[in-house]
Amino acid sequence: MPISKGPQAFPRTEYLRRLAAVKSQMARRKIETLVVTSWSNITYLTGSLSRMHAMHALVVTLREEEPTMIVRSMDGPGVIHHTFMDRSKVVAYSESFVANPAKNGFDAVIDFIFELGVAEKGVGLELGNLTAQVAEKFKSRLSNANIVDCTKVVDWIRIVKSDLEISVMREAAAIADAAIMRAAEVIRPGVREGDAAAEIMATQVRGASGGPNATNMKPFLMCTSPRTGTAHILWSEDVFREGSQINIELSGMRYNYTAAIMRTFSIGKASDRLRRVHEAELAGLEAALNTVRPGRTCSDVASAFYRASESMGVAKESRCGYSLGIDWLEPTASLANGDMTELKPNMTFHLMLGNWLDEDFGYVISESIRVTETGVEVLTKAPRKLFEL
Amino acid sequence: MPISKGPQAFPRTEYLRRLAAVKSQMARRKIETLVVTSWSNITYLTGSLSRMHAMHALVVTLREEEPTMIVRSMDGPGVIHHTFMDRSKVVAYSESFVANPAKNGFDAVIDFIFELGVAEKGVGLELGNLTAQVAEKFKSRLSNANIVDCTKVVDWIRIVKSDLEISVMREAAAIADAAIMRAAEVIRPGVREGDAAAEIMATQVRGASGGPNATNMKPFLMCTSPRTGTAHILWSEDVFREGSQINIELSGMRYNYTAAIMRTFSIGKASDRLRRVHEAELAGLEAALNTVRPGRTCSDVASAFYRASESMGVAKESRCGYSLGIDWLEPTASLANGDMTELKPNMTFHLMLGNWLDEDFGYVISESIRVTETGVEVLTKAPRKLFEL
Repeated sequence: MPISKGPQAFPRTEYLRRLAAVKSQMARRKIETLVVTSWSNITYLTGSLSRMHAMHALVVTLREEEPTMIVRSMDGPGVIHHTFMDRSKVVAYSESFVANPAKNGFDAVIDFIFELGVAEKGVGLELGNLTAQVAEKFKSRLSNANIVDCTKVVDWIRIVKSDLEISVMREAAAIADAAIMRAAEVIRPGVREGDAAAEIMATQVRGASGGPNATNMKPFLMCTSPRTGTAHILWSEDVFREGSQINIELSGMRYNYTAAIMRTFSIGKASDRLRRVHEAELAGLEAALNTVRPGRTCSDVASAFYRASESMGVAKESRCGYSLGIDWLEPTASLANGDMTELKPNMTFHLMLGNWLDEDFGYVISESIRVTETGVEVLTKAPRKLFEL
Repeated sequence: MPISKGPQAFPRTEYLRRLAAVKSQMARRKIETLVVTSWSNITYLTGSLSRMHAMHALVVTLREEEPTMIVRSMDGPGVIHHTFMDRSKVVAYSESFVANPAKNGFDAVIDFIFELGVAEKGVGLELGNLTAQVAEKFKSRLSNANIVDCTKVVDWIRIVKSDLEISVMREAAAIADAAIMRAAEVIRPGVREGDAAAEIMATQVRGASGGPNATNMKPFLMCTSPRTGTAHILWSEDVFREGSQINIELSGMRYNYTAAIMRTFSIGKASDRLRRVHEAELAGLEAALNTVRPGRTCSDVASAFYRASESMGVAKESRCGYSLGIDWLEPTASLANGDMTELKPNMTFHLMLGNWLDEDFGYVISESIRVTETGVEVLTKAPRKLFEL
């Protein structure tokens, strides 16, 4: 029996709007076909939520309204179920192409381009995401095509969200907030980090009380004394202790749209140093938020943060954040000195103020934010404080 | 203050053994330096558990006993904390290289190769994992080096585990078993899939009762009626219903070593079709297990499965599994017809018998297994049955 279409996160018109923007960029670049390989870009253009490990791609062509997804046989039904396209737009290739050195999923993609009759026209590839071997396969088999590098073309379209996307990101932010509040409940002296992590992650999946559940989750980062100087590690096998500091970075996810938040926790009274850093970072955070509005640049926001926190004695080496959306980080704009990307309404960012000051000491705070017509909306709403437990 | 070394999953001698095997392959290939970029291979050679998004690499050289890890500044402390190497073997590059089109983390790696004085010797790269742009950067900046493709060289060493690794994989399997048993407790009619998923994942993190917690987790796959024909999707926003079938694939993780398991659940009595498929797959599973022993090939194991299940009327299109280890799937041997990899003691596999028979109907069962001196050890121990709830 054919598989049914699942409930859709967005109406068909939303996907057609996104595709129209992509096709307009394709026309500017004089390409007839675009091969999209980034997971996040495929989710954006189709609604697919599958997590496929075998080679796959979405082929967008100016000749057809809907794009075509090429996936291994076992992934066909999941893509039909999740995406807005007609079932004829999901092309499944033989399982014999998987783990096969002679012929793989990208051969199926190239075969499809030949069938479309566009193999001698302009073909766009996201070369920045393709391995050298795959890029070479496209170039050698499509030797009469004009190959155009389209790395980040779709990503730059994703940077401005629709109101529908913003609604979904607000739901994601509510999940992230709930998980932070759960952390404040379960982190106690003598508790295993892993047991607290289990409770926090369960909230990341279950969602906020009375709200929808998450539709995906990423394991969160928890850097506890003596590891607060680390940025990207998970919980350990240790137990929390009186006086421990805990830095948490976590996310809520709805249809793979992600809202992120960081908060710092102290079991017992925070040290003077931690309190001073918190106050400087908070001043920087507020200065950054006060700077966000259409027409300002990413660099303006970062500079406001650096100025305010440095005036209170705290310098930060890394950037202050990045564009936020499907699957968390978007590889486009950074909130960094010198990034001249102009802020526009409905851009969203992770204003990420994690600051790893010494090898053994760091502090984290962040918000997920939206640029509004006149300023800023902070999507994450957990108390903006240093939690003392 | 310098960050302390964390507790190590393996003794130093274990890492030196792994590195000796790598260096032996390097000598055979006449390269003096190997640049390892696969996350899983880096974990294997160092113990690193960080999940870093910025460019990073491990440089192994015949000139030095310990390898050197090159990471962005904020990731230095985490790598020092987790890995066995001396702190001088962690080289942190400036945060200004992140999201910088002019100079990135791989420039720092290449700078390090120049500093080592090996830039005019043989340099191995895992080209199969590198983007075309990164490969080009290595080739152009190391124009006097003899670049050798070393894709999967470390992966093929990983395929045979040490007894120490097997111990860790047994712990991972116990976590996977506990999560399957938790699924059998929480899947009930009227329960939201997301609420059940939250409980199952909490068990994946907390671990088996009385055992160690997991040190990482991957969101698990749950394909519920009418989606049992899908292979790689997560829980939905639906509720379970009387008569629902639920296919689950999940893992336990210890130090990123992964054990995987699949089981099928039915709320109420299983349909005759589901029961027949289960019995055919079970016969195939047992035939496959009876075939595993040193000297046999991966193809022999797959053939035994296909023969037994086909004799009971059930054919399967996809392969029967793959080598299993750090971060789940290893990209080396497949349990597939024609894969002539010879089984050796302490190879581990995910004997993966998921079978998506129709767009709207599939069935799953699997075990994580080890090749012993004389046959097979099944690492996962949850009841090998069709769960009727």
